[in-house]
Amino acid sequence: MKLPETIGIIGLGLVGTSLGMALHQRLHPVWIVGVDVDPKAVALARSRGAIDESAHTLEGLREADLVIVAVPPAAVVDVAEQAAVVMKADSVLTDVASTKAAIVGALERALPAHVHYVGGHPMAGSEGQGAASADPALLAGRPFVVTPTPRTDARALDMVKELVERVGMRPVVMTPIEHDDLVAQASHLPYLLAVAVVNAASDRALTVGGPTLGAFVRIASSPVELWAQIALANRTAIGRALEGVRKELDALERMLSDGSSLRARLARASQRSQAARS
Amino acid sequence: MKLPETIGIIGLGLVGTSLGMALHQRLHPVWIVGVDVDPKAVALARSRGAIDESAHTLEGLREADLVIVAVPPAAVVDVAEQAAVVMKADSVLTDVASTKAAIVGALERALPAHVHYVGGHPMAGSEGQGAASADPALLAGRPFVVTPTPRTDARALDMVKELVERVGMRPVVMTPIEHDDLVAQASHLPYLLAVAVVNAASDRALTVGGPTLGAFVRIASSPVELWAQIALANRTAIGRALEGVRKELDALERMLSDGSSLRARLARASQRSQAARS
Repeated sequence: MKLPETIGIIGLGLVGTSLGMALHQRLHPVWIVGVDVDPKAVALARSRGAIDESAHTLEGLREADLVIVAVPPAAVVDVAEQAAVVMKADSVLTDVASTKAAIVGALERALPAHVHYVGGHPMAGSEGQGAASADPALLAGRPFVVTPTPRTDARALDMVKELVERVGMRPVVMTPIEHDDLVAQASHLPYLLAVAVVNAASDRALTVGGPTLGAFVRIASSPVELWAQIALANRTAIGRALEGVRKELDALERMLSDGSSLRARLARASQRSQAARS
Repeated sequence: MKLPETIGIIGLGLVGTSLGMALHQRLHPVWIVGVDVDPKAVALARSRGAIDESAHTLEGLREADLVIVAVPPAAVVDVAEQAAVVMKADSVLTDVASTKAAIVGALERALPAHVHYVGGHPMAGSEGQGAASADPALLAGRPFVVTPTPRTDARALDMVKELVERVGMRPVVMTPIEHDDLVAQASHLPYLLAVAVVNAASDRALTVGGPTLGAFVRIASSPVELWAQIALANRTAIGRALEGVRKELDALERMLSDGSSLRARLARASQRSQAARS
């Protein structure tokens, strides 16, 4: 399957607009049609060079070879279903939602056969929100997880992977459940731990602060609505990750009266961290 | 009590050396005697302008008006006791250990009456270690907690607070137990949570990473031996803080099937975080 010449992006927030800018910079020639309910986001995405044309409705996606659904996670399934109705034969649809098992399952059941779905999750972002914070540099070198299943069209998968490489990201293939466990461990549970620490801290501890709490405070000030949708959507995997962290915390607490065990446990974390950073 | 003219610093690591540099920059004229078992640390502290003179033994502190004990936390009580034996009448001793209740209790019992002890904890640092990473800028504007008790000499306390202001830090007064609860909430428990997250994460999650896990990974790569000493010394307060965080986590987990409660809890953390950052 050749690379798309016409691309639709639904949802011109941080990720959708950043992807549009990166596609324009890295994939000439390409024509990008943007769709968003917010006229301000559309105008901003156009002025930042993310889209060539805007459409008020999903009808504008009739010519698209590829549609990227970049709306908030709770809206992905509905919007993708509506887009697929107008999309042409042998076109490809992907999304950027940060949970995958439920969305992939729902879309594999719901999408018509003439549209090939490939679940996606670009693991990139910033503290900012919206088209105003968009920046293709946020994507550079970051992983773009694709989550094929036995029902995924192999040509569509290869095309999405090639496109991901062309925009300077790193395609990483895993199953939807592997993905959800990974983001629960790497992102969703750490966020909820930061929320728990901030809510449990005294006013004075928050005011006096320090660099360690500062990192938790930055994480806990992330956009509430987006994170609520993510946490609700990924609650099963978050529950599994939480069990793992609870066991580690119980072990660490016991070791607070046993210096040598504690040192070994802290050293393991330090070594794994240094390996991850290098 | 007038500001000290001769200051001894025992332990020329990150904090001791940074304090020496800041004292020289901000408090003219002052004569600083440095003591460290490691000749390399002594040479480095001298070359960086942290000390004027070095002593191989604590005997070199006979003339000091103030002695700052900046050795690793587990050694503070022993070193302070030994220093007090040679210190002159009406001199002041402080420390920089990041736990206070046990150290303050032990030193109030052990120190001779002619040496006035004021417990201290400059809440500053970096990922670096040792004199090579020392930098007075790390201290600027940061809180320096002082932990007086009913047995603390009021003149010595006032002198230490004035000195703290003179080096550009912010004196914050609280009891030793208030201090230990605060640092457990703001620093020690967040560190242990980062350790738990890193140890519980799969290899793949650590490799793929992302900005949230990245913050935890940075925290979990902190120096193991220093943190082991801190965690062991502050285990009682860490246990109290852990209970609070466990309750928050239990509540958050229940709310993963109740969107509106979850949103309220996340919003509370976001608001507290934004208030703490402003």
